[in-house]
Amino acid sequence: MSCIFCAVIAGEAPAVRVYEDDDYLAILDIRPIVRGHTLVLPKLHTVDLTDTPPETLAGIVTIGQRIAQAARSSELKADGNNIVINDGKAAFQSVFHIHLHVAPRQDGDKLSFAKGLVVRRDPDREATGRILRDALAELDAAKE
Amino acid sequence: MSCIFCAVIAGEAPAVRVYEDDDYLAILDIRPIVRGHTLVLPKLHTVDLTDTPPETLAGIVTIGQRIAQAARSSELKADGNNIVINDGKAAFQSVFHIHLHVAPRQDGDKLSFAKGLVVRRDPDREATGRILRDALAELDAAKE
Repeated sequence: MSCIFCAVIAGEAPAVRVYEDDDYLAILDIRPIVRGHTLVLPKLHTVDLTDTPPETLAGIVTIGQRIAQAARSSELKADGNNIVINDGKAAFQSVFHIHLHVAPRQDGDKLSFAKGLVVRRDPDREATGRILRDALAELDAAKE
Repeated sequence: MSCIFCAVIAGEAPAVRVYEDDDYLAILDIRPIVRGHTLVLPKLHTVDLTDTPPETLAGIVTIGQRIAQAARSSELKADGNNIVINDGKAAFQSVFHIHLHVAPRQDGDKLSFAKGLVVRRDPDREATGRILRDALAELDAAKE
């Protein structure tokens, strides 16, 4: 399988899963800029904003919003989030299966953010994934 | 009126308008990082991802997608786009009325992009707005 995200979706490549439903999957970025850096992908392969249906894009972003909210409410204690889609190689897209980045941010984290752009490592990815999954479950419970 | 985007929406502050419907407005960023740097805003004031309805967010992003497509098909000749929402002051949000950035990119523009982060100026904003409006109209015509 030539697309790494399709391989992850098929269970043929490893990933720390944060969220999953019939149509979407959210996983931790393997090279996180910040702790909790998450990617939201549609299960159906499309490349970028030129071929992704608007409905799919809407689904991706609303899941990204939930994850951003979970990053704030979780013990990651995010004070904000950068939400990013890199549409095309010219815009730094590196995996050509469309995905939305959620990068949790904290007040005064500019230096560690800059460091993260270089280091891109989470020493405890499993714990980070658990924290976000738990926070999403709590948000869902609060809605009911 | 304390919110500059609400003032723009009300027609009380100037802006180069790229797109408008009953619920959303897209304008050129007054301090563009790249030519065509556009902001998509909901007309109803909300602050960030914590208080914006998911339906509104979906509307913002699908309009952003159209503008990204228009940037590619227009004479701006974008090869890609960065789509960004800065959610919270910690994430570099500077106007606290939620908005989505569309920043058209070109192959090999890294240096001019870096320069744009500092200079943030478009010498002919009116022409840029016209180019994007025309490209959006052409996309709409092609759909029909």
